Amino acid sequence: MSETENVYVGSKPILSYVTALVTALQKADKVNVLARGRAISSAVDVVEVTRRSFLTDIVVDNITIGTEVLGEGENKRNVSTIAITLSRKKQE
Amino acid sequence: MSETENVYVGSKPILSYVTALVTALQKADKVNVLARGRAISSAVDVVEVTRRSFLTDIVVDNITIGTEVLGEGENKRNVSTIAITLSRKKQE
Repeated sequence: MSETENVYVGSKPILSYVTALVTALQKADKVNVLARGRAISSAVDVVEVTRRSFLTDIVVDNITIGTEVLGEGENKRNVSTIAITLSRKKQE
Repeated sequence: MSETENVYVGSKPILSYVTALVTALQKADKVNVLARGRAISSAVDVVEVTRRSFLTDIVVDNITIGTEVLGEGENKRNVSTIAITLSRKKQE
């Protein structure tokens, strides 16, 4: 299995990211779910829907929040970010 | 100092919660910033704005996500939640 996959959550419907997350968790041991701004709520939804309805053995290893500076000059602005690191419980 | 204060983030402007958070961090050693659904993005904004512009010594101790069931019968629905636990770096 490869090391780490990233799933970027944006403004598409939640279920399209759920599909991407399920696929990523089948390929990699660790998956980062990443989002910025308004999409942060959706990123949490994606993880919760996946954990509730698709892969109930998902473990949240870590969650970090931060700030990114987007744009140049007059358009420069701060945007909040989230990174949710997931893995699956080892099968015995 | 008291133990733990909670700040609930909803749909008011970010800065009103920033003020609440600054006050809470002056009263308590630990503060939980709590939000549900769409307000999750705002909760992250509140923490980031407070940390960047008001209290730069804030430490994120823990972040947890979860699901809450709201409503009854036909209106029953799952809502994602976030809890961000903050404290301030001890002064030497």
